[in-house]
Formats: sequence, C-alpha cells, structure tokens
Amino acid sequence: MPPSILLLIIFGVVCLLEFPGLTEGGKLLVIPQDTDVWLDMHSMVTKLKKNGHEIVVVMPKNNEISHLSKDFIMKTYPVPALDPELQINLEPTEPLSLLSCFFSTISIEYRRLRYTTSILSNTCQHLLDDQELVRYLERSSFDAVVIDPWFPCGPILAEHLSLPSIYVMPGFPCGWDYTATRCPKSPYQSQHYGQMDFTQRMKNLLVESLEYIACQEIKAEYTRMASQFLHKHVNILQVLSQAELWLFRYDFVVESAKPVMPNMMFIGGETCKEKENLPHEFEKLVNSSGEHGFVVFSLGSMVSEIPINKATDIAEALKSIPQQVLWRYTGKTPPNLGENTHLVKWLPQNDLLAHPKARAFITHAGSHGIYEGICNAVPMVMLPLFGDQMDNAKRIESRGAGLTLNVLHMTSEDLSNAVKAVINNPVYKENIQRLSSLHLDRPVHPLDLAVHWVEFVMRHKGAPHLRPAAHDLNWFQYYSLDVIGFLMFFLLTTLFISLKCCTFVFRRCCKRSSKQKPKSKSQ
Amino acid sequence: MPPSILLLIIFGVVCLLEFPGLTEGGKLLVIPQDTDVWLDMHSMVTKLKKNGHEIVVVMPKNNEISHLSKDFIMKTYPVPALDPELQINLEPTEPLSLLSCFFSTISIEYRRLRYTTSILSNTCQHLLDDQELVRYLERSSFDAVVIDPWFPCGPILAEHLSLPSIYVMPGFPCGWDYTATRCPKSPYQSQHYGQMDFTQRMKNLLVESLEYIACQEIKAEYTRMASQFLHKHVNILQVLSQAELWLFRYDFVVESAKPVMPNMMFIGGETCKEKENLPHEFEKLVNSSGEHGFVVFSLGSMVSEIPINKATDIAEALKSIPQQVLWRYTGKTPPNLGENTHLVKWLPQNDLLAHPKARAFITHAGSHGIYEGICNAVPMVMLPLFGDQMDNAKRIESRGAGLTLNVLHMTSEDLSNAVKAVINNPVYKENIQRLSSLHLDRPVHPLDLAVHWVEFVMRHKGAPHLRPAAHDLNWFQYYSLDVIGFLMFFLLTTLFISLKCCTFVFRRCCKRSSKQKPKSKSQ
Repeated sequence: MPPSILLLIIFGVVCLLEFPGLTEGGKLLVIPQDTDVWLDMHSMVTKLKKNGHEIVVVMPKNNEISHLSKDFIMKTYPVPALDPELQINLEPTEPLSLLSCFFSTISIEYRRLRYTTSILSNTCQHLLDDQELVRYLERSSFDAVVIDPWFPCGPILAEHLSLPSIYVMPGFPCGWDYTATRCPKSPYQSQHYGQMDFTQRMKNLLVESLEYIACQEIKAEYTRMASQFLHKHVNILQVLSQAELWLFRYDFVVESAKPVMPNMMFIGGETCKEKENLPHEFEKLVNSSGEHGFVVFSLGSMVSEIPINKATDIAEALKSIPQQVLWRYTGKTPPNLGENTHLVKWLPQNDLLAHPKARAFITHAGSHGIYEGICNAVPMVMLPLFGDQMDNAKRIESRGAGLTLNVLHMTSEDLSNAVKAVINNPVYKENIQRLSSLHLDRPVHPLDLAVHWVEFVMRHKGAPHLRPAAHDLNWFQYYSLDVIGFLMFFLLTTLFISLKCCTFVFRRCCKRSSKQKPKSKSQ
Repeated sequence: MPPSILLLIIFGVVCLLEFPGLTEGGKLLVIPQDTDVWLDMHSMVTKLKKNGHEIVVVMPKNNEISHLSKDFIMKTYPVPALDPELQINLEPTEPLSLLSCFFSTISIEYRRLRYTTSILSNTCQHLLDDQELVRYLERSSFDAVVIDPWFPCGPILAEHLSLPSIYVMPGFPCGWDYTATRCPKSPYQSQHYGQMDFTQRMKNLLVESLEYIACQEIKAEYTRMASQFLHKHVNILQVLSQAELWLFRYDFVVESAKPVMPNMMFIGGETCKEKENLPHEFEKLVNSSGEHGFVVFSLGSMVSEIPINKATDIAEALKSIPQQVLWRYTGKTPPNLGENTHLVKWLPQNDLLAHPKARAFITHAGSHGIYEGICNAVPMVMLPLFGDQMDNAKRIESRGAGLTLNVLHMTSEDLSNAVKAVINNPVYKENIQRLSSLHLDRPVHPLDLAVHWVEFVMRHKGAPHLRPAAHDLNWFQYYSLDVIGFLMFFLLTTLFISLKCCTFVFRRCCKRSSKQKPKSKSQ
C-alpha cells in the first residue's frame, strides 16, 4: 500500500478517535415551518441521520414532500389556511415589484413582512395548540433542536423543553440577530453590497430606521405568543438569545464582511454538491447544444408560472440567442417559443450548472440559486422578485459576476442583451470564476461544518464557551453605566470638596488681609 | 478493502482535487522578531515547508536556534544590545510583581510595555537600516508574508514590498487589533474572565483608559518609524489595517467570547501535538512514579532560574507531596531538595503532560503551557510572572481548572496545599477535562487551519472578501455623519420654512383681523 494511502487511513482513524461522539447516536428535534425551510435543511439533516442520530421532524402537514421525509420520524400538525379577510388585507397587491420608487418598495416590503409573519404566527399557534404533539415532545428526551428562528415556535419550544438550540437561517430580518447575540453593529454596515455612495448610505439608514419601526409590531406579537405559552412574561428577544449556535446560510463572497460573534458559523453553499449524472433527457439536450452551449433558466419553486404577456416577451428574447435554453416553466406555452427553448417542469439545476457547456444562468437570485451559480462559476442574469433576492442580485452585480433586470419593466431586448453580455463579455466569466475559487477554497466543506457544530451541541449539551458573558448582564451593567456613574460621582465629590476647601482657604486669607489692611491704615 | 478505508481514500483524493494549490510551491517570507516568536511560529512554518513552499526567514542573528532553522533560508541581521542608559531607565525593577496593589501593577506593566517596545524598536531600526537585506527582499518576489504585528518592521516591510500579510500573534496590546480590523468593541468586554463584579468592571475600565494613554507614546514612535522608512506620512494603525488575515493564537475555552471579524481566525492550541515517545531517562522516571503519578513543573524558557530562597521554599513544598516531581530548573540546587524532586535542564512538556500518570502541572501560565495543559487535561497550579500570564491564570482559575499563587508572597505551605488540592479534589480534574473536550472538538485542527489560511492568502494574493468595506471610508462616512448631517439639515430647513410660512399666514390673518377691528370700531 502506498504511504499516502496509509497516511489517509491513519488520519481517518485519528479523526474517529478524536471525536468519539461522531458515530454515537443522539436524538435530534428539527422544526421547519414550511416546505422551503425543510428543503433547505434536508441535506444537513440527512447527513446527521447517516451519522447515526435519530431525527424527529415537526412540521405542518404536507403530502407533497413525503419522498423527502421517509427516513425520519415525521410529526405533523394540520394548519388551516389563514383567515381570508386577514389574507386579503395583508397580501401584497404587487407581487413582482422591485427597484421601483424607494417608498413604494418599502411599503410593499413591509406588507410582505407582515404577511409572512402572519402566516408564521398562524402556523405556530396551531403547533402550540396541538396538546398531544406538545406532550409527545415533552416526553421525548432530545439532545438538541434545530430551527429557523424566524418561526417563533422553534425558540419557544426550545425554551419550554429546555433544549440547547441551533439556529439555521439564510439571514435574519429586523436585525434581531445582532440584538439576540449581543453582537455590536458596526456604525457603517452595508445591508446591500461593498462600498456605498452617499445616496445608497442614506437609503440604508432610512431602510434600517423604517425596518426598526415595522419590526416593533412583530416583536409585540411574538412576545405575546411566547409569554402566553410559557406562562411567564418573556420578551421574544430574550427567548432568541438562548440559542447556542447560529448557522447562517451565507458566505462572505456574497455577503459584506461585518462584525460577527464566535457562536455564529457561516455555512453558505452547503447544498452545493458534487456533480451527479444528468437524467437521460437532459443529457441528450445538453450534448446537442454544440459549441454555443446552453442557458439554464429557473425562477425557483415559488414562481414557475408568470403572466402570458411577460412569458411571450421572455420567449422572444431567448429566441434571439444562439444557445439552447432549458426553461423551468409550468404556465401556458408562449406562441412565439423559439426552437432553441425547451420548457421543463423541473430541472436538475446544480448538475446542469456543473456541466462544462453551461454558459449562463437566468435566476430569481434566491440563496440556493446564487450559491449554485457561484459554486459552478456560471455568470448570471438575475430577475429578483422580492425580499433578499434583490439584495443578492445587487451583490452579485456589484461584484461584476452578473446583471440584474427589473422583471416588470424589462423589454425582450433588455433580456436578450443581458444574456448575450454575460456570455460574450469575458469579464463576467472571470469575475464569477474568481468568486467561485474564493468560495470553494475552505478548510472544511460548509455541510460538514454545519453537521460538526450540530453534533458539537448534542455532545456537549450546548456551546457555552462561545456565548459572550454579556448575556448575563442587565443593560446598565452591559454599558458599564454603574461604573461610569460611580467614577463620575467620585470625581464630582472630590472636585466639590476641593473647591469648598479652596474657597474656605481663600476666604480666610482674604479676611485676614482685609483685617490687616485697615490695621495698616490705622498705623 | 473495507468500504470505510475506500471512503477515506476517496475523501483524500477529493481534498487534493478541491485545493489544487495545496501542493504547489509558493514563496513565503516570515519575519519573527525574536527566538520566542520563531519558536511559536515554527510548527506552522515547518508544515508550510512540507507542503512544498520556499520559506525565507528574516530574524536577528542568534546561534542558539540553528537546529530550528536548518530547513529554511535564514536571512539574519545583527542587533547590538539596547543603549545601557535607556535599558536601566526602562527595565522594570520588580520583575516578579503580580496581583499586588492596582496602581503599582499598572505602573510596572507600563514600564514593561515601554521596555519591550524599546527593544522591538531597536531591533526594527537595525533591520530597516540593513540596506543589503532590504534590497534582497525587494528583489525576491514573495507570495505573502507572515508576521507578529507587534514588531513594527513586519507591517512596515509588508507595505514597502506590497505583500499580502498574515498576522500571527497570541493577542494584541493597546486594543489596536480592534482599531486596525474595524471591529467594534462590545461596551462590556472582559479583558480578564467571564462575568465580572462591580470592582472588576471598574478595574477593567480604568486599565483600558490608562492603557489607551500609555499606548499613545508607542503609536507615535511606530508612526515615526513607518513614515521615515516609507517616505510618506502614515499612521502605524493605517499600516496595520492592511493585514489580510489575523491568526490569533487563542481559543474561546480560555479567552472570553467577544465580537470578531470574518478575517480573524483562532488557532489556539496549534502547537499541541500527538504524544510522542518519551526520551529514555524521562520514561524511566515516569514509570517509577507508582500509583501517585507525577507533577510537571516549568516556568518557561524565560525563567528557569529563580532566587535561591524562593527555590528553597518551593523545594520544601514539593517534598511534602507523594508525587514524583520533574522540575525544569537551571539554578543552584536548593539544599532541602526532596527525594521525589528531579531537577532537569529541559523537559518534553507536551509528551509528559500527555502521559496518563501526569497529575498536575505547575506553570507560569504562558500561552504555550496552558494550551498544553488544557489539551492533555492536566489541572494546573499557576505562578504567573507578568503580561498575559496573569490574565491566562485568572481565566483558568475562574473556570475551576486550576489555582493561582503569587510567587512573590506565597509560602511553601501555600504551594503544597495548592498542588494537593488540584490533585486530590476531583473538581479540578473534571473542569479541565470539560475544557479539554470542548477545546479538542473542532472541525479542523488549528495547525491545519493556520496553514490553510496562509496558503489561501498565497493562492489568492489576499482575502479581500473577508475585509470590511469600512476600511475604504473616512471617519465621517464610517459613522454616517454626512448622511445624518444632510437629513438634519433637510429636516431643519423644512421645519424653518414651515414655521416661516405659518408665521407669515398667521401675521396676515392677524393684520387682517386687526385692520378689520378698527374698521368695525370706526363703524
């Protein structure tokens, strides 16, 4: 056996010896609030299952994902639809708005935030009301719980069951990640991308201030929910601050570098896997694409249908490029569909992007998509729809690795030009390759990192050494106001006494001299 | 071949494919200011050499460490001793003071800081004046430079040679790590250990304020040096902020959790190796220690001699315990030396601590020592002498894994009681085992982490995505003062105009009514 192989075997054995808990089975609770979050957590949880842990997943009843759930103990609860009146009141009227007027964007984003929060609150209330399920959780003894903390039920149940919790999320609205982790925010912190000019920084400040106000309502709602279930008054931020670890599903090749805490880990790109073989029909299509290669087009699982007039515009644009196009689309076939454009109901996105003939990726710029684009170094044309997609798109564009279009206002020419640009201008390919090489050059794969830290919390019942001591202080201790107060009091008292002494001495001297003066006169 | 071995081989091959640069040779410059720093960096640099890189080490001439330098291209420069008058002025008169009166400690620490800074300045000036060496460095084309940034020559030469730099250090005085990385400091941040009471927090605030004042002098000196060599006015903090990565040689099982930046990595315990076989004489001694085991005693490389009366006290204490003692000591043999106490000039510290019969570790609490103690889970009796040793000792004691003694004021009974306590009270062993298990449970060994990030900077000529954009802003942009100013101006102007309008309208109304009134009167 060659020495390198022997070394690898020894390394493997040492690894197993060093982390004896790695193969021992623990019991893990996972609480995804919906199908999307479950899809995001799926590869991590699958790997944990493979490592020998028993996994219990608590989520709303959903028959569509049964193929993703067969390896786990699924505990579901029914969630009736949101009260229709509330839904109409909150549902954003303009689902595809973006990059438009600042204040209208803000207002739409606010309505969207309130809408998703209402759905989460509704789902959470049904989970907390399911007494049988809650009793089952109380009886089971878990080692830890994995949650997306924006769903308030996760942190509330972790507190109720006294379980160490690991938060997994793409990001956190309202800046609560800063408050709950006691991470100080840099005065200059781009929510958007790299360096900002004056206007962008003003927008940033205004967005943050308005977001703060908007979030107060959500905070009150979540706080009420937590207090009611836990039978004590607790602020939702107190509950959130109990987290042992925060696993953020982003990487600093996309996100701006900013202050973090030792109990934050960054697992962006954890779903980007090794390329697998393409299904036969895709393999055939891709191989027939010739020297021009092909373009992958998907707006994600949430938007696979779009209005027919928009679809016609898009089809017109796609017709004009020499590449073959694989378009994930389930709506009515546009009448002008080009011969090079192939509509599919589903596509193996990562495997297609990993193909050497992939030339461009037209995406809505969701986290999943952009990390698969970066991982496989495919330049992107981004049509962001809402939420963090707009931020993602701006970040990729500012790094020169893609172009962003406004899906509402773009013409077919705009789209055609953008796709041609990212394919024919080598700068886009160079930039995405640079991002890709930075992103892939890691001491440990983000999926392994995530699994390691979840198992760490399970093994040690937490990660207390990574939490700042500041968590155990009240606000005046945290800001050292008592110390400053005491020192000020001490200083002022010393000053006052010194002044009094001086005045006293001065008066005595003056009196004496004034007494002496008349004397001298009389003399 | 069993499937697990096959998996390991595949994993190894994937690793090699994923990091193609890992085995390609680069050219690395290393600038340690003295033997101690060279010893600290040695294992990392050796591993980099093994990975195929050419290593050039620039350090003061020193014949003692030739055995540690044979694998590298050594470029040395002579450094005459410090001007004797200056040395006498600055050298601390009380080398072994600690835990004594607050202000006397501060004053001694200040003198020590000034003393070490003067030595570093002197060394640095000789390096910068060595034109032949500087020209050699200018001619060589390095990929990156590894430095301990407290030695100003490292960052200054990195700037001069336009090289991406990696800082490796146990910690950073003066809080310059925060300023130079743009990492906001938490208002509550323990310099010492976990949670602090009122007095400790007051001490902390005072120490920080006094340190800030003391550091201004050093800053001015380093700034003068940098400006002179680089032929332009540069603040030393600007020069320091150019670092690509900061590798801190600590771990959060010892250090308090605090805000960090994405370009900070934590490699504490990187020198803690797998146990090697003990040399024959130690093996014999250790095996003869019986059921009571043995105690390892070393005050580090800087203090192997101590005053004879103190040594006699210590010998008295060591005589009273049933364990064998291995004491690294080169001074005059104390007359009362017990039969169980064996004086040695050097000892294989890590291998002895890794032996299952090691019961306790008497140490001066230097970084090296405490991480070897933690790594091997041996409870400690700590006799800190100066600098970060006192902080280290307090941290370990506050975690219940050891006891701290004042080496100046302790009696032989104190030492004897402390050693007996850490050996016989199981709490100390339990606590050090807990720290050890947290410290060792890492996704990647800290030495591999350090090597990975040095190679990362060599491969990508930096790590730009991990540096905050704040570096490129001036201070009023950083604090958004221009935006706040503009918004205030806008608000005040609007208010002023509104007020003026109101006043104008009000006056017109009043005039009209006052004009009307006389009219009505006249009527």
